Amino acid sequence: MSSYLETALGGNSARAPVWMMRQAGRYLPEYRAVKEKYDFWTMCRTPELAAEITLQPVRRFGMDAAILFSDIMTPLFDMGVQVDFTPAPVIADPVRTAADVRRLRVPEQDEIAPFVSAAIQLIRADSPVPLIGFAAAPLTLATYLVQGSGSKHFMEFRSWLRTDPALASELLGKLTEVTIRYLRAQVAAGAQAVQLFDSWAGLHDIASYREFGAPSAAAVLGALVRPEVPRGYFAVHAAHLMDAVADLPAEIIGVDWRTPLRVARTTCPTRVLQGNLDPAVLLAAPDVVRRETERVLRDGLGGPHIFNLGHGVDLHTPEAGVHAVLEAVRDFDRTAEAAHGAADGAVAPTPPAAPNEREVDAL
Amino acid sequence: MSSYLETALGGNSARAPVWMMRQAGRYLPEYRAVKEKYDFWTMCRTPELAAEITLQPVRRFGMDAAILFSDIMTPLFDMGVQVDFTPAPVIADPVRTAADVRRLRVPEQDEIAPFVSAAIQLIRADSPVPLIGFAAAPLTLATYLVQGSGSKHFMEFRSWLRTDPALASELLGKLTEVTIRYLRAQVAAGAQAVQLFDSWAGLHDIASYREFGAPSAAAVLGALVRPEVPRGYFAVHAAHLMDAVADLPAEIIGVDWRTPLRVARTTCPTRVLQGNLDPAVLLAAPDVVRRETERVLRDGLGGPHIFNLGHGVDLHTPEAGVHAVLEAVRDFDRTAEAAHGAADGAVAPTPPAAPNEREVDAL
Repeated sequence: MSSYLETALGGNSARAPVWMMRQAGRYLPEYRAVKEKYDFWTMCRTPELAAEITLQPVRRFGMDAAILFSDIMTPLFDMGVQVDFTPAPVIADPVRTAADVRRLRVPEQDEIAPFVSAAIQLIRADSPVPLIGFAAAPLTLATYLVQGSGSKHFMEFRSWLRTDPALASELLGKLTEVTIRYLRAQVAAGAQAVQLFDSWAGLHDIASYREFGAPSAAAVLGALVRPEVPRGYFAVHAAHLMDAVADLPAEIIGVDWRTPLRVARTTCPTRVLQGNLDPAVLLAAPDVVRRETERVLRDGLGGPHIFNLGHGVDLHTPEAGVHAVLEAVRDFDRTAEAAHGAADGAVAPTPPAAPNEREVDAL
Repeated sequence: MSSYLETALGGNSARAPVWMMRQAGRYLPEYRAVKEKYDFWTMCRTPELAAEITLQPVRRFGMDAAILFSDIMTPLFDMGVQVDFTPAPVIADPVRTAADVRRLRVPEQDEIAPFVSAAIQLIRADSPVPLIGFAAAPLTLATYLVQGSGSKHFMEFRSWLRTDPALASELLGKLTEVTIRYLRAQVAAGAQAVQLFDSWAGLHDIASYREFGAPSAAAVLGALVRPEVPRGYFAVHAAHLMDAVADLPAEIIGVDWRTPLRVARTTCPTRVLQGNLDPAVLLAAPDVVRRETERVLRDGLGGPHIFNLGHGVDLHTPEAGVHAVLEAVRDFDRTAEAAHGAADGAVAPTPPAAPNEREVDAL
């Protein structure tokens, strides 16, 4: 079993496996070369292009996992929503009224973005490492659908939740069902792990998150029960929500750069933590990158750890920054460091991982 | 003494005083009437207009405090920086190099935005309630100066801090000195309280905040020691920074809508808490506004509380929402509720406020 999957399922390897959110993207010259010829949405919906882009960072840097190149808005098209990438996603006709919500289609599993399943099959045929499929959490999809476009505080969406919570639940229910089907299609096509991105969860206080965000995320994750396919969940800027996140049925908890791994470990003691180097660090000098990478690695001792950034790779990231991270992760012996830390009294030794208690379910 | 100042200095009144961040602004028809005739920066730098706008919400709604109408970028002009409001602030020539930092002027106290002092004098002559002066915290000013314009994660600024921390400290030192002088000028002109807004502190992990944000905020607040002028500090989306915020020399800690007041009270037990109704609530039906306002008021029992929103008033806020908040705050008897909660075992009775330990310093 690969080091990524072994750790994702709760194994505690000596070296942390590593991948990076948005590892396929504009900071890579080979990505920009493809981008010169095709627009973003063509790249997403052409299986050969999506597969090629997915594998570019793995070939150049040798990450321990690939993540599907796609966009979190992808399943919305088959619900009858028109999304324009400008490059940020814009929904010309935001969903606000009961009629808007009822108009949304809930497509069958094989109707949702079939090009994604095709891309997954191509990637699996070529990839030396496991492939992570992904989707947006229903709350985050609803954020865009209701607001229409990006916004600092998504005030229209947040007031809409307060104004008509029943309609909000109806919308979230539809998005939950579509997201379950979309991720099941990805797993059926060959995705070996799934990740739910809740990019806008951090907008809400914990009461609103418990009412609108956590139930739909839990329903999606709970419907993906296959013991060999680990499930990850990542909420951005959500230190204030960790008590609720800790209850979600996911093996892997992604951690934003602003929540120390040590703190997340206290809240989620039986999970695999994934994160959380600040992507801004990769733009600094290689010795700074190495020092900060080691700091995160030490912070991640005490349980299973998949090294990642605390948010996506930035557009301006130099290759040297990515190399410096990977080198530092490869050089870091968790077993030796944990023993050393324990001898110093500074860090508890890495405990055995929690048993995997998921039941088998036919997907 | 007014209910606002009494509470701000640690008194525990039966009714929470109330004001709202951005209470003067575009949601008000009388503001929009002024805005039709003058551009934003003219409104800021014309004392008669700034004074009129400052008092508009107090006249219409009867808040317990007025806050100066101005912009957090105001003192930058006298440092030699050109800021354009588009309407978001844009700095055509961002500060990045050592030469850029050294070129910044540190003007004398009476050179910094003298129109602000003039506006304060006009407001004091007319205002039935205390006037709060304000400035941006140095870290937030530096965020704009280095980045140049708004950005989701201010990556250029955050990587700049990592790349050249010594230069960052030099910039923060200059901004600290200017901010001290600017706030001293406001107090000298008649501001009865000061508020430091650290709008972008929440971008940083706590280690970076302790290195770059907290020392400069502490230096500003520490230089404004006058026992009759309470000092407030507000960092947005900063639940993860509260342990560091708790050490700042401020009487009043502003609380974002995502940090429950009860949690902030545990971290900052001897402070006056200010906040934290989600501004999105004001766009909902009046009964929802009342219910959520009462929830925040109950959450604020246990110590001195100035009622406020957890962020600025939104542009689309209806007057009815503001009225509903004020009515609910006025109807809420903290003494009776605390006694009731204590009888239920649910809420500790309001403890006596901490003594004011500040020393007198000639401003």
